[in-house]
Parts: sequence; structure tokens; C-alpha cells
Amino acid sequence: MRFLSATSSDGVREQLFTLDDIPGALWTPEAAPAAPLPLVLLGHGGGRHKKDPEVLALAHRLVRECGHAAVCVDVPAHGDRPKVEEYDRLAAENQARVAAGEEPAPLIAAFHALVARRTVPEWRAVLDAVRRLDHVGAGPVGYWGVSLGCGLGVPFVAAEPRVRAAVLGLGGALASSEAAARITVPVRFLLQWHDERVPRDQGLALYDALASQQKTLHANPGGHAEVPPSEQDGTLRFFARHLAR
Amino acid sequence: MRFLSATSSDGVREQLFTLDDIPGALWTPEAAPAAPLPLVLLGHGGGRHKKDPEVLALAHRLVRECGHAAVCVDVPAHGDRPKVEEYDRLAAENQARVAAGEEPAPLIAAFHALVARRTVPEWRAVLDAVRRLDHVGAGPVGYWGVSLGCGLGVPFVAAEPRVRAAVLGLGGALASSEAAARITVPVRFLLQWHDERVPRDQGLALYDALASQQKTLHANPGGHAEVPPSEQDGTLRFFARHLAR
Repeated sequence: MRFLSATSSDGVREQLFTLDDIPGALWTPEAAPAAPLPLVLLGHGGGRHKKDPEVLALAHRLVRECGHAAVCVDVPAHGDRPKVEEYDRLAAENQARVAAGEEPAPLIAAFHALVARRTVPEWRAVLDAVRRLDHVGAGPVGYWGVSLGCGLGVPFVAAEPRVRAAVLGLGGALASSEAAARITVPVRFLLQWHDERVPRDQGLALYDALASQQKTLHANPGGHAEVPPSEQDGTLRFFARHLAR
Repeated sequence: MRFLSATSSDGVREQLFTLDDIPGALWTPEAAPAAPLPLVLLGHGGGRHKKDPEVLALAHRLVRECGHAAVCVDVPAHGDRPKVEEYDRLAAENQARVAAGEEPAPLIAAFHALVARRTVPEWRAVLDAVRRLDHVGAGPVGYWGVSLGCGLGVPFVAAEPRVRAAVLGLGGALASSEAAARITVPVRFLLQWHDERVPRDQGLALYDALASQQKTLHANPGGHAEVPPSEQDGTLRFFARHLAR
């Protein structure tokens, strides 16, 4: 793990790093409480990156309001990472198939499953490295990710026993219901009632497939990108409750 | 409106009353802030009454934590009210039909619609009377009711422009989707994922039918009576936010 820069604002320290060839950002309290801190891994959305405004806003609130650490790394072919020829080819193929009238949901799901084969081991390595840092430590781990962050997050949370609680959503069951059935930690699941990218029954089916005894579905009106801001308050309360030391 | 008794505990003043022949309970802060107070009308569940433990717990928290007033009256044939021969006859008929293999949901829905013909005007009269009291006043009004309280609450909220925000749930669309389509205030809607009394698609359809732009569906695993306690915290935050003066 190699640190590239460190800056601070509003009590939040941000360190940019690379781990092998993966670029990432780590946010921790400037006036650090005693480690270990709860750590939330954030999975960014499709076409976004580790310092996407939504990711940045959530990371800052997790640090300032909960005293947690937060980390996000670029997904392959996103942010500062090089293009992946196979992804580009698939994306072009999928666009053509949707233009020809095919349903987008199964294509998106298959693409997420492909990318997850790389991100699951990458994110596990990120947890290993970040939890070895003196100012973070080996505390409880949470995961947050919607849309692409859900498609990649479901197999990650299913594979990673260190994750104790997860916020997921804006994703469907097609690619990941098998992995979802292996998730048993508390989950907060967001669904947009008029999601133009994820059919409603697919989102409901993914929530249904989670094996967690504690799982709450929060549905709100509006499209894929219109999750109401009040859900972020609930996300902070959720992590504060489940990652309490 | 005739007051029968007044007691106080933990900062909450409880007054039992009758309005015409309707027995009710009113809860207000003992050390009353300046009226008008926000007022939440609570609709109790089937077979329950105005001082059901769930109603009582919520009323006390609304008073103590939000500084609101809360009121609940017995539904006809519940609590201190006399039996209604027509209801008894229908209940016996419905039991026989369910025993003979009929789906219970449409029977429950038809029964709620019948009872609502009495409760909607009764509850409107309760609002009139309580909001004329010096220690309550004509403040913003909220409604809370699940199960029977939802079956009766949907037509009430649809009919009553003074209600600014409502918590509903554990109910289906069969009887009330037409009334639901006239509800435009913010709604928090609770659904139990394994509800043995309300089919899941009926609950989802009732949420769908609400015309409100701000409406959140909260689904949790478990049966009709197993709403997790954390939902009550959310209910308090919901009323505090929407009934702020």
C-alpha cells in the first residue's frame, strides 16, 4: 500500500493511495479516536469513481458523525484505472442489443457478475491492507453500495465474513440471487419504485433472496437516481448501530 | 366532550373522555408547551382498544419525545363500546368462509370498508373536539394506524384535509385503493414480508396506489405482528419532521 497524498478538511483526513495497481481513497477522523475504528467500504456506481460526490459526501458524514473510517477504490475501467478491452466490447454489444429491443436488466446483471470476479478479491485485499494501518486497525466492517455497488457488493458481502452490516439496493436479483442467499448480516436495502433500469419485481426478488434475518427494504417513489436525501441519514444510523464497538 | 378522569405519569397527562357515545383517551405533555400542539390520531388494531399497549407506548413517546398530543378512540365493537350485531354476524360468516377455503384478504377488506363508514365521521368529530381544547389547540394533525388502523385510516386520511402526514401499513389494496389514490400527504408505509394475513402483492399494491409524492415503504421480514421495534423510532422522527410547527 503506497500513500500518494494526505489532506484534511472539516475534521476529515483524506489519503489517496494505490494498492498494487488499484487507486483508492481512505477517510479517517483527523483527531483520531483510539483504533480500531469501524471501517465502511464504499462501492461506487457505474461510470463513477472513488471520489464521486455521493461517495465523498457519505464518507465525510461517516467520519464526522459516526467516527468511522471509510474507504473506496476505483472499480476496473473506472476513475484512474485503465480501460478493460473486454468490458468495452461487452458494453458496446449490450448497447446494440438494448437498441434492438432486448431487456437491459439481464445484460447489466451479467456484466456486474463479470466485473465482480475481479472486485471481490481486490476489495478483500483492500480490507486486509487498511485494517493493518495503525490509525484504522482491525475493527468491525460495513459495506455500502447501490446500483453497480450493489451488483458488485452482493457477491463481496457474501464472500467476506468480516462484513457485519451492509447497505445495498438499486439492483436486481438476476445475477446475484445465489450470492444473496449466502448473506446473513443485517441489510438495509434501497429500492426506487419507478426505477427505469431495474424492474421492480427484480429488486423485490433480490431483497427476498437475502438470507439475513434483519433486513429492511426502503422503497421510495422516483427513478434510479432519485433516492431521497433522508435515506442517507438512515444509512448513518444503520452503520452507527451495527458497527458499534 | 366529557372528561371522565385525568392521571399523570412520566410527564404525560392522560385524560379519558367520551364524545357522544365514543370512549377515548387523550395524551398531552404535563408541562404543556404553548398550544397549538401537533396532534396525532392513533387507530388501534383489530380486537384491540384505545389503551392497547402498542397504542399507549407510541402515545407516551409522541408526548415525551416530540411534545405532541395523541388521541385514540375505541372503534365500534371494540374496547368499551357495545357489540354491533351486524359485525358479529359478518365475522361469523367470514370465519365459516375462510374455514371452507376462501381467501381471508377480500373478506377482511370488505369488513374494514364497512366499519370505516362509521369511523371516518367519528374520527373527524374527535379532531373537531380535541382541537378546540385550550391545552391542545388547532395545530397540525398526523395519523398513525396499521392493520385495522390502516383499513380504517386510508379512507380517513383521504377524507380529512387536516391530516398532514400518516403512518400506515399491514394492510392491502383490496378495499381501499380508490381512497389511497386520493391521499397526497407524506406517508410512511409498513409491510411485513411474511404477513400471514395480508398477501405481499396486496400490500405492495396499496403502497403503489397512494398518490403521495413523498411515500416510503418499509418492509421487514416476519409475520403480521412482528414489526421490528426500530420502526417506532422512525415513526417518531417522521412525525417530528412533518408536523413541525
